[in-house]
Amino acid sequence: MQFTKEKVDKGVVEREFDIEVSGERVPAVIWAPQDASGPRPLVLMGHGGSQHKKTPGIRARANIYARELGYAVAAIDAPGHGDRISRDEAERLSQEVGARVRGQGPGGGMDEARLKAMAERTRQAVPEWAATLDALQSLAYVGEGPVGYWGVSMGTAIGVPFVADEPRIRCAVFGLAGLRPGAREFEAAAKRIEIPIEFAFQRTDPVAPLEHGLTLFDAFGSKEKSMHINPGGHLEIPRYEGDSWQRFYERHLGRGN
Amino acid sequence: MQFTKEKVDKGVVEREFDIEVSGERVPAVIWAPQDASGPRPLVLMGHGGSQHKKTPGIRARANIYARELGYAVAAIDAPGHGDRISRDEAERLSQEVGARVRGQGPGGGMDEARLKAMAERTRQAVPEWAATLDALQSLAYVGEGPVGYWGVSMGTAIGVPFVADEPRIRCAVFGLAGLRPGAREFEAAAKRIEIPIEFAFQRTDPVAPLEHGLTLFDAFGSKEKSMHINPGGHLEIPRYEGDSWQRFYERHLGRGN
Repeated sequence: MQFTKEKVDKGVVEREFDIEVSGERVPAVIWAPQDASGPRPLVLMGHGGSQHKKTPGIRARANIYARELGYAVAAIDAPGHGDRISRDEAERLSQEVGARVRGQGPGGGMDEARLKAMAERTRQAVPEWAATLDALQSLAYVGEGPVGYWGVSMGTAIGVPFVADEPRIRCAVFGLAGLRPGAREFEAAAKRIEIPIEFAFQRTDPVAPLEHGLTLFDAFGSKEKSMHINPGGHLEIPRYEGDSWQRFYERHLGRGN
Repeated sequence: MQFTKEKVDKGVVEREFDIEVSGERVPAVIWAPQDASGPRPLVLMGHGGSQHKKTPGIRARANIYARELGYAVAAIDAPGHGDRISRDEAERLSQEVGARVRGQGPGGGMDEARLKAMAERTRQAVPEWAATLDALQSLAYVGEGPVGYWGVSMGTAIGVPFVADEPRIRCAVFGLAGLRPGAREFEAAAKRIEIPIEFAFQRTDPVAPLEHGLTLFDAFGSKEKSMHINPGGHLEIPRYEGDSWQRFYERHLGRGN
């Protein structure tokens, strides 16, 4: 756990660090209240395709959770994302994914090659998340406080298998990804999940049809699971869902302040 | 507007009154903070089939809204319900509807005769709600504050046509009722609704299949509409949805205190 940068914004400290997993450097970041000392709730945030660990949505929520709830929040760059690729590669990825989520990509949804790449990325990402969580819990201001997960779109594609086999996660927000016919491993992972779930879906999402979303919702083994459907596409989750996630974490992880 | 009973509970006053609509007596109730004087937000609550204006769920929420948000909350007995029928009739109705929502009734869902009776009841109920709203707004402690509607199941069956043609309603919570194929009038009413909607649905509701719920959700003309799907049957809406409704009203009607 090699800390590289530190920055303070209105009482919240953002610390970047690297960890090494299977010989590869994984860039990570943690936000926490500046005066944090003992154990506190931790939320792990998995970014979407083409995004990175400090993508504006994640950074904004991390700051709110740290400031208002006293939480620690952490994110890592997924394989093939963020500081793990060059600026040019990131730019190309952003344009390609951007077109797809707006329904402008060739073929719109996911083709075989993309599904294969996603499965490969997930296999690499799951142990990286587990190692990151180990490292985070070694920090005195995180410790063994309750842990939640947040991740939509690619954050769900990676998050479902991660959360399914990670007993330290107590609740999770997923969304913008469904269960495709034949995706047996993903389905089996969803069925193993029994923690409370909040599941955000958009009615006219070109990359995640509602039908697949309902199938994934049904697959989750959780007794408490709530699917929220709103109008619009992949990038149009309304602001009030963000408020709902915050209350969801507060309900299940408590407060850190 | 004939006041009949008054009762105070922890700072909230519950006043019962009757109004006359088309020669028929409509029993009504209003809750408000005991010290309420000027205009404030008002929520109209439509009870479910076999229930009545002071059904426990409505009374509990009314007290919370009055106490925590400073709101006025009002309910009326729907045609053929509450004080508009005898105790024996109410008991029979409760057993019949109770069996149906548990999936134990003959045929489970709604048959032709029940749909006809519901349409007739709705035709009578809509002007009763409008007259009640007129009467309520004549009270100094209600006045012309912003108005919301809440009603699931029969409260949606009656509420959708009421809200569709009542420009004073600014937002509404509906749920536990869907759009059946061929229900053209109801569909047309849903399409005329353009105010923010929160729509509560249960995954395995024997009287309101999810498919019909999605169709009704799609029919609403509102730009802001949010469908929340939870596991379980007709009577099992989780408690956190109640918290969500409260925040929904606060967002759209503001506070009265």
